[in-house]
Amino acid sequence: AGVICTLFFPDAKLPCRNARQPGGCRRQHCDYAHDATNLTRFLDYLASAKSTLDICVFTITNDDIADVVLDCHRRGVKVRIITDNDQATTTGSDINKFRQAGIPVRQDNTPAHMHHKFAIIDGRLLMNGSFNWTRQAVTSNNENVTVLADVTLIKSFQAQFDKLWAQFK
Amino acid sequence: AGVICTLFFPDAKLPCRNARQPGGCRRQHCDYAHDATNLTRFLDYLASAKSTLDICVFTITNDDIADVVLDCHRRGVKVRIITDNDQATTTGSDINKFRQAGIPVRQDNTPAHMHHKFAIIDGRLLMNGSFNWTRQAVTSNNENVTVLADVTLIKSFQAQFDKLWAQFK
Ligand SMILES: [Zn+2]
Ligand SMILES: [Zn+2]
Repeated sequence: AGVICTLFFPDAKLPCRNARQPGGCRRQHCDYAHDATNLTRFLDYLASAKSTLDICVFTITNDDIADVVLDCHRRGVKVRIITDNDQATTTGSDINKFRQAGIPVRQDNTPAHMHHKFAIIDGRLLMNGSFNWTRQAVTSNNENVTVLADVTLIKSFQAQFDKLWAQFK
Repeated sequence: AGVICTLFFPDAKLPCRNARQPGGCRRQHCDYAHDATNLTRFLDYLASAKSTLDICVFTITNDDIADVVLDCHRRGVKVRIITDNDQATTTGSDINKFRQAGIPVRQDNTPAHMHHKFAIIDGRLLMNGSFNWTRQAVTSNNENVTVLADVTLIKSFQAQFDKLWAQFK
């Protein structure tokens, strides 16, 4: 029961945003994916957060992912984000959006990289792998994210998150 | 039994190469680590390969790791390496060393990134995470590598390896 699945990228297409709204997509010719993709599966895991969402990811520029994180925050999920300064100032970084929404964000301001790409959902699920939360990682790169429910593993990643959260205060 | 452990980086020090040789380290003042570090644990897993070692890693520049891979090859382990062209030509890349030793190497020559950082040992262990096989990743960055023995998970990563191996022919 420890390992739930692995999502491999690239996806052939980005998901259609309309298709996920009530009423669906009404475009005559839509180039985006209307069926489930590995990104929509990834978003569904994030969106399943009920109480806490601890994110520790080097680069976050993907707006589909950012929207789900912002929505978790609006729903009352306690979101915390750790990221790296090299990427937080990148064009398209969603870090300022998170800060403006009131989500606590801490970043590694040293020359070294906070290079993790993991998230812990409700202390119940760990998502971890090579996958940065960018658009390129979804539709161009070869990437992986494994979803795990192993209690011991989640404890060790939670301890790592808490350590870095204190360190980058 | 699926999850064996996670190695978190940075290590405080690089391992002393002399300490791992017969006779040990005789330097009066040695700045390198003489006890086990997460890198030496990582090297021990790699060195445990008996029949096959499939490596699919974005950047490989760490000579301690390269030496263990070369040693596996010399012992008759069937080593295969997939990497990315953006990094294969980086200063300090060990890719040419592997090719010269006769290890088959295939690389992603597209503008996208082959961004995985995993290895499969004897079809028995998977090592996967954020950790590129570089020196900076060992002693500077915050990184993780999880070691797993889950059969289903290893099958899905082996299928991914075989797919990319065929694709980058
Ligand atoms: Zn559509
Ligand atoms: Zn020494």
